[in-house]
Order: sequence, then structure tokens, then C-alpha cells
Amino acid sequence: MEREHFSAAYDTELNDLRQRLLTMGGLVEVMIADSIRALVERDSDLAERIIAMDHEVNTHEVAIDEKCLELLARRQPAARDLRFITLALKIVTDLERIGDQCANIAKRARELNEDQPLKPYIDIPRMAYATEIMLKEALDAFVRGDAELAIKVCKDDSFVDDLNVQVQRELLTFMIEDPSTISRALKITYVSKYLERIADHATNIAEMVIFMVKGKDIRHTIA
Amino acid sequence: MEREHFSAAYDTELNDLRQRLLTMGGLVEVMIADSIRALVERDSDLAERIIAMDHEVNTHEVAIDEKCLELLARRQPAARDLRFITLALKIVTDLERIGDQCANIAKRARELNEDQPLKPYIDIPRMAYATEIMLKEALDAFVRGDAELAIKVCKDDSFVDDLNVQVQRELLTFMIEDPSTISRALKITYVSKYLERIADHATNIAEMVIFMVKGKDIRHTIA
Repeated sequence: MEREHFSAAYDTELNDLRQRLLTMGGLVEVMIADSIRALVERDSDLAERIIAMDHEVNTHEVAIDEKCLELLARRQPAARDLRFITLALKIVTDLERIGDQCANIAKRARELNEDQPLKPYIDIPRMAYATEIMLKEALDAFVRGDAELAIKVCKDDSFVDDLNVQVQRELLTFMIEDPSTISRALKITYVSKYLERIADHATNIAEMVIFMVKGKDIRHTIA
Repeated sequence: MEREHFSAAYDTELNDLRQRLLTMGGLVEVMIADSIRALVERDSDLAERIIAMDHEVNTHEVAIDEKCLELLARRQPAARDLRFITLALKIVTDLERIGDQCANIAKRARELNEDQPLKPYIDIPRMAYATEIMLKEALDAFVRGDAELAIKVCKDDSFVDDLNVQVQRELLTFMIEDPSTISRALKITYVSKYLERIADHATNIAEMVIFMVKGKDIRHTIA
């Protein structure tokens, strides 16, 4: 009876950890979508709010790290739970850095909004949407222990990479044809690279999930 | 007697983990220096070797992760050791990603070496050197549990950030004055940003070390 009670409390704690990570993930997903909305709709107030949200993400990170250490110390988990908790420790770092990237996008949006628009944004919102889905699916794969979904995320990364190359190429043409566009084009180039980095973080999460589920490391083997 | 034996074996394992991380760190430090040497000395063979070294870094990452999980499962460490091992788990991810950035620098070097040189590299080698020292000191701070040294690393990050801004600005001037330089200047811009990201990773490591030593979180509080 005592043991069952112990076990139920432990499960609750693991579920609580899972939930906290999803909450943080949800916040970061909103930041991806909103930072690009701040750019596309030229909404600098929204950009300011995203930059401020970064602090909220950092608070989540600290709390989740503490929770993981506490679980490791008090519960001394083994096997599957151990992999889950150590993975949570790594994922939270990726989520925090995605938050940083969103803040960076918002800062570039704020600067770009002060200037004449260069061109309508077409590929960047597509990249952002794909990236947001990748993050969502990577976190879903984590909480459900779904290796198949995680593999899909790794494969989707090349879509974002290709779009990034395309955006870089298009902006290079702008810069060469009209040097007065260089400063603005460079900033858009950065936004594209920030999105590519976010997609990399999502891919890193997915690779670690596959490791957790399969118990062996397939990182660095998916081309 | 039995207990002492247990304890000595445990210490050996912790020292082994420490040593493995330093070996991986040393490898990555060499990659930073050599990737920039491949650029400055226009040595594409060296660039190739760095790109190949990235696999070696990945092998270290997998081995250290496994060692950490094994220690957590078998030794059920508490307090200070627990913080040390969980931090090792996070640091190894940063080291692996620094390796990726070095491979990126080497790829840009390989491309730039095929074209006429744009200008002598002055600030980029300075950035690389500062970045390498930051990483070295962050890892020293980790193994010695030296919070003062870790704080120094965090402060040094602004030096690299400032150099990056300066490089970006200088290259922008080149691009505006002579659009034929844009493609090459952009690649150098990327190299500068890769170095800035490496310095960010070193700073992340240092912030986590301060957390480990002081037992409280000063991440997100150092301006």
C-alpha cells in the first residue's frame, strides 16, 4: 500500500514535469508564430512583447531544471524514467535557446519595420510555419515516446534548410541588383537563419527522443 | 573497507568523466583554431580535415552521454555530484554544437579559398582566439568548480559580440561600395556569426558552471 502510494506520487511528479515542458514548449511555439507576425504585419508593439516574453521562457527553464535535479536526487529513477528526466534537462536548454532566437527575430522585425518594406514576405512565413510544426511534433514525440514522429521531424528539417538557401539566394540577387537594399536584405537574411536554427533545435530534440525510445543513439546517423 | 573501495571506484569514474569532457573540449578548441587557420592561410585540405573531425566529436558526445546515464543509474549520486553529472550532460551538447559551427566555418573557408581574397583577415582571427580562450576557461571553470573564472567568461562574451558587430559593419561597407564583393563578403559575415555562436556556447557553459558552484541560478541575470 505504502509502495503504491509512493509510486502514484512519483507518477504525478513525472506527469507534472511533462506538463511543465509542454507549457514551456507552447509558449515558445507562440513566440515563433508571433515574431514572424510582427515582421509580416509590421507590428513593432508585438515585437516588443515577444522580446519581453523571453524572460518568461527563462523562468520556465530554471524551474524545470530544478525539478529534474530534485527528481533525480529524491526518486533515484532507473532505465526509462532516467532517460526521460535527463532528456528533459537537455530539451529545456533547446527550448530556452529557441526563445532567444524568437527574441532575435523580433529585434530584426522592429528594425525592419522602421524602414520601407523591401518585398512581400512569402518564403519566411512558410519556413516559420514548418518550423513551428517541427517543434510541436518533436515535443509530442517526446511526451508520447513516439520514435516514428521524431524521425519525421528529422526528415522535415531539410525542407526548412532548402527554403533558407532559397531565401539567401533571392536576397543576394536583390543586393547585387540594387545596393541600397543591402542593409534591409541582410536583416531578412538573419531572420531566415534564425528560423533555420530553430528548426535545428527541433531536430536536435527529435534525435534525442529517438535515442530515448530506442535506447540506442541514432544521432549523427540520419543524413 | 568495502565502502572505501566503493568510494574510490566512484571517484575514479567521476574523474574519468571529467577527463573525457576535457579531451572532447581540447579537440573542439583545436577545431576552432584550425578552422580559422584554414580560412586565413587558404588551406582547403585543412578545411576538409576539420569537416571530417566533426564525426569524432559526435562519437565523444554519445560516449559521454552514456557514461553520465550509467553513473546516474548505478551510483545514484546526490547534491554536488548530481549537479556535476547533469551539467556534464548539458555541456557535452554545447561542445558538439561548437564542433558543428567549426565544420561550418571550414565549409565557408573551402568556398572562399576558391575565389580571390577580399581583404586580409584581422578581426576574425582575434575573435577566434578570444572565443577559444573563452571555451578553454569555461571548461577549466567546470572541472575546478571555479565560479570567478566562469564569471570572467560571461563578461568576455561582449568583446566577441562587439567584434562581430564591427566585422558585420565593415563588410556591409564593402558590399555597398562594390556589389561584386557581396557573395564573398556574405560568407565572411557567416564565419563571424559562427564564431559569435561558439562564444555564446562557451558563455552558456560558464553560466551553468556558476549555477553548479553557487547552487543557485544566475543565468539570465548577468547583463
